[in-house]
Amino acid sequence: MANRIITISREFGSAGRTIGRQTAERLGIPCYDAELIQKIAEESGLASEYIKEKEEHSVHANPLVNIFMSDRTNGGFSMQDYVWSVQREVICGIAQKEACVIVGRCADYILRDRQDLLTVFIHADIEKRAERVERVYGEMDDTPVLKRVKDKDKRRKTYHRFYTDREWGVAQNYHVCLDSGALGIESCVNILCSLYTGQA
Amino acid sequence: MANRIITISREFGSAGRTIGRQTAERLGIPCYDAELIQKIAEESGLASEYIKEKEEHSVHANPLVNIFMSDRTNGGFSMQDYVWSVQREVICGIAQKEACVIVGRCADYILRDRQDLLTVFIHADIEKRAERVERVYGEMDDTPVLKRVKDKDKRRKTYHRFYTDREWGVAQNYHVCLDSGALGIESCVNILCSLYTGQA
Repeated sequence: MANRIITISREFGSAGRTIGRQTAERLGIPCYDAELIQKIAEESGLASEYIKEKEEHSVHANPLVNIFMSDRTNGGFSMQDYVWSVQREVICGIAQKEACVIVGRCADYILRDRQDLLTVFIHADIEKRAERVERVYGEMDDTPVLKRVKDKDKRRKTYHRFYTDREWGVAQNYHVCLDSGALGIESCVNILCSLYTGQA
Repeated sequence: MANRIITISREFGSAGRTIGRQTAERLGIPCYDAELIQKIAEESGLASEYIKEKEEHSVHANPLVNIFMSDRTNGGFSMQDYVWSVQREVICGIAQKEACVIVGRCADYILRDRQDLLTVFIHADIEKRAERVERVYGEMDDTPVLKRVKDKDKRRKTYHRFYTDREWGVAQNYHVCLDSGALGIESCVNILCSLYTGQA
C-alpha cells in the first residue's frame, strides 16, 4: 500500500491529536486539525468556533431528536448538513493536493475510496483519558472530568454514525487501532511512521 | 508495559495464526494454537477434534437456542462450560509458566488481569480473507467460500460474547488491531515484535 494520507480518528483524551502532530512532523508533512476547522470556516463563511462545535454538539445522542428537531423534516438541508458538505469538499481538496495527516472530521470515511490511505483509530482506558484531559485541558465548569469524557465520546460516536452509517471504534473500519494509554504516545508515533514509510 | 505474553484474536482467514507463529518464532518464544487444543484435550480427557469444534460450533448464533437447548437449564454444567473451564485453567497455567504467543480461545479475556499482556486483534476485508481461505484450506464440501467465512465469523463472535460478555472486534478491547489484508503479514509481525521488545 502506498500511503500518502494518514487519517486519525480518536477518543477524547487519547492523545490522538498529539500523535497526529508528532507523526506529521517526523514525516515532514502537514497535519490538519485546527487548520481544517479554519479552512472549513473560510469556505463556509461560518465562524471557526461554530464549526468546532458542530462536530460534536449538533447531533443529539437520541436519533429521534435529530429527526424531529432538524429542519431536515422540512425537506431542507440543515446547518449541520451544510457544514458536512463543506467539510467533505475541503478534505477531498486537501487529499488531492498533498500528502498529510488529517485528525478527526470523519476523514477516513470521506476519503474511503482512495487507495493511498492509512486509517488509524487511537483509544485508551477511560481513566487514563480522564487523567490526561484534566492535565492538558484543565478544569471546565463544574462537570466531573469522567462525565465530560463520556459525553464527548457519546457525541463523537453519534455524529460518526449519523454521517457515515458506520460504528465508531470498530476495528474492522481502520487499518490500525492503537491503545495509546497502554503503548505510549512515542510507540504509536513510531508505528505510524514505520507503516507510512513502508519500513514496518 | 513489560510484555511476556501476546494474545491474538483473529477473524477467520485473516492470517492471525500465521502472524502469531512468525512473531513467536522471531521472538524465540513458543506459540500455542494447535498445542493449546492438545493440552486442553489431555486435561479434559476429550478428543482434540471435539475441542477444536467446541470453540465455534457449540454456541448457536441465536442466544435463545443456547438457553433452551443447553443442559444449563437443568441447573447443570454443559459440556461447553466444562471445556471452557479446562481451557481457562490450561491458559492460566501456560501464562504463569512462560513467555509465549497464544492464538484464539479468548486468552485475552481469560488473562485480562495480567499486566504483562499485549492483546492483538487481526482482521482483513472479507474478500481478501475468502481468497486466502480458498488458497490455504482449499475447497470444503459445496459451501461457497464467502458463506464459510461469514459463518465462522458469526460463530466466533457469538462464542466470544457468550463467554466474555464483550464485543468481538471492538478496538477498545485490544492494545493493537491490525488489518493484515491492507498492511501485509510481514508488517504485522514487525509491529508486534517491535512492541513486544519495546523497540516500537
